[in-house]
Amino acid sequence: MSPRLDSSLLVDNIGELVTNVAGTGEGGPLGIRRDAAVLVEGDRIAWIGPATYAPAADRRIDVEGAAVLPGFVDSHAHLVFAGDRATEFAARMAGQPYTGGGIRTTVSATRAASDDELRANVARLHREALRQGTTTIEIKSGYGLSVTEEARSLRIAREFTTETTFLGAHVVPAEYADRPDDYVGLVCGPMLRAALPYARWIDVFCERGAFDADHARAILTVGQAAGLGVRLHANQLGPGPGVQLAVEVGAASVDHCTHLSDADIEALASTTVDWTSGAETTTVATLLPGAEFSTRSPYPDARRLLDAGVTVALATDCNPGSSYTSSMPFCVALAVREMGLTPAEAVWAATAGGARALRRDDVGVLRPGALADLVVLDAPSHLHLAYRPGVPLISQVLHNGVPHHE
Amino acid sequence: MSPRLDSSLLVDNIGELVTNVAGTGEGGPLGIRRDAAVLVEGDRIAWIGPATYAPAADRRIDVEGAAVLPGFVDSHAHLVFAGDRATEFAARMAGQPYTGGGIRTTVSATRAASDDELRANVARLHREALRQGTTTIEIKSGYGLSVTEEARSLRIAREFTTETTFLGAHVVPAEYADRPDDYVGLVCGPMLRAALPYARWIDVFCERGAFDADHARAILTVGQAAGLGVRLHANQLGPGPGVQLAVEVGAASVDHCTHLSDADIEALASTTVDWTSGAETTTVATLLPGAEFSTRSPYPDARRLLDAGVTVALATDCNPGSSYTSSMPFCVALAVREMGLTPAEAVWAATAGGARALRRDDVGVLRPGALADLVVLDAPSHLHLAYRPGVPLISQVLHNGVPHHE
Ligand SMILES: [Zn+2]
Ligand SMILES: [Zn+2]
Repeated sequence: MSPRLDSSLLVDNIGELVTNVAGTGEGGPLGIRRDAAVLVEGDRIAWIGPATYAPAADRRIDVEGAAVLPGFVDSHAHLVFAGDRATEFAARMAGQPYTGGGIRTTVSATRAASDDELRANVARLHREALRQGTTTIEIKSGYGLSVTEEARSLRIAREFTTETTFLGAHVVPAEYADRPDDYVGLVCGPMLRAALPYARWIDVFCERGAFDADHARAILTVGQAAGLGVRLHANQLGPGPGVQLAVEVGAASVDHCTHLSDADIEALASTTVDWTSGAETTTVATLLPGAEFSTRSPYPDARRLLDAGVTVALATDCNPGSSYTSSMPFCVALAVREMGLTPAEAVWAATAGGARALRRDDVGVLRPGALADLVVLDAPSHLHLAYRPGVPLISQVLHNGVPHHE
Repeated sequence: MSPRLDSSLLVDNIGELVTNVAGTGEGGPLGIRRDAAVLVEGDRIAWIGPATYAPAADRRIDVEGAAVLPGFVDSHAHLVFAGDRATEFAARMAGQPYTGGGIRTTVSATRAASDDELRANVARLHREALRQGTTTIEIKSGYGLSVTEEARSLRIAREFTTETTFLGAHVVPAEYADRPDDYVGLVCGPMLRAALPYARWIDVFCERGAFDADHARAILTVGQAAGLGVRLHANQLGPGPGVQLAVEVGAASVDHCTHLSDADIEALASTTVDWTSGAETTTVATLLPGAEFSTRSPYPDARRLLDAGVTVALATDCNPGSSYTSSMPFCVALAVREMGLTPAEAVWAATAGGARALRRDDVGVLRPGALADLVVLDAPSHLHLAYRPGVPLISQVLHNGVPHHE
């Protein structure tokens, strides 16, 4: 049941409000306000201020001193698939290394699934993510790997989010194993054309065993020419050219960044917003700690990135092979434990950072005019997301101004 | 609303039932049955068998192919306290080491709290744990550290569980800083007497900076003579005599076990059940991965313990200083990622292992006559607890035969 668009809602008695508007109150980039209230009108934030000045509203939610944050922005998820790979996971935990080869298992299962089966699986994971506070989610294709299957995956993804990504270049499918050039031709031609009506982004898995820099450049360039934004999987399993390619083509984000050279970090740090022209040229480094957790790989050193001035985002990489978590709070806790982020930096990266990685300014931030995507914690401070790992702390979620109920 | 004690409930269409009855079906010690059903009468399990033979019952829960496990047994939790230490946690994540010194901060806050404040905090964490599938929980005192305060903590703990542990010897309180012998005398005398009506166990934090082996032995021996079972915190921050002391006094469990010598492991492996006399002499090694996670310490090598034949349990150590998680699923995922347990071993340790650590045979196992403590996963297999880290996968909880609702 949707509220009337002209109805107003007051979120009142917020003990700690993380706005991500730097310079507001305490907390540096988190822009923390104490004893605050937020007025929502329709799907937008209309007013933020001290609780003592809160205006009247049609409805009121009293959060009794709890912390309130922008909804999480999960900028990297692979939700359109069928089947699971629990036994592959168990074998890996018993010592087998992760090579990415299992992707083809999921491709077979996905192709064999009906639209309704795929849709039900996305719906389940989307609901699971929302319950854990994710109010913006990117969803990639990449388990179809044929013209009709990639278009089908994106069409289904688009039912759940506008942040859809064409990842035809996830891996070379078995039927093209001996002729990768032909597959890249397919991706750049008919597959891209079939994907376009449903996609906002194009992505390539640029890694030894997947696509090399020349193939990735060709695919990203043609995607960009067709009007798609660019993002990239790179430097996950080892060092490689992906990060510098991402900067070269002006990608919004380069994801994984597990193995970085000094030159990679310099390249990322050289990207920035041109405040004169308003042109956004930042390439965000999106870290995916769930992948390192579930493949038992060393974690990237986020400290090194932050100290160099690189913009960092956190995302789940939710997928059945290498990171089957939908939990942004879990990623926040891991980033603090394993990557050297402070709790504040991790919370920023999981909200504002994700928004930057999607080049969105209406999410990941709480200010008048932004979308009313808020999470209420069952805790007095954002610190508890790292301090209380594994505990489901999201007590309420407001998505586009509408309270989410199970 | 409680059901009538003579009412029956059928849990039907269980895709994978983990019984922990070794030799049942597949899965070795997990005793996995496929396509099973469980009949509950009152607070006990009355029958387990193939779903096709399921008897009629007053009520029926169709779990639609999901996995069902024994409820988690969290054999180590410090829930009676006031305040939190989120800022100490944030400072530690920025580089400060964990020394255990912060315990005194919680002691001050706990002493200053009213009964109702303490009770509300225990109730909140107890509810949170139950929602995450914990149906048996041990609760320790240890933030009171005076005769009346320890008795008060245990009295409140006893309102929530029968597994209450007197931990007057958590740390020497500030007012006894210069005369630890006097404090040990107090613990062994008036404090123990005041605790007895509410306690089933006695515990000591045997560690440099807390209590040495002589003090610990004195306290445990007098507690044992007074009729309490014995457990011990040991070898968390460094090597020490605690593990061998635990074996010497016949402790049910020695907890943390982060730093172990070969002799420690040999001592633990030498403990066993005397099947002739029925005397239980096993000292379980209880691992607390949440503590290593939240203090950024190296994890114990559980593989080494299991390979030596030691019985291993997993528990949360839920407390505001060093491990503020109430999530047994999180501990399972960590134990697999960081300690070398297989998913099956971790699930066993979090259920049957915890039961052994509390010397209980009516929980942590699903067989006729056992308590009807069951968790239903939002997943087809126990593997998903490690495969899907951070995701709230507990969809239903049956505690003493009663479905738990929020
Ligand atoms: Zn990915
Ligand atoms: Zn403890």
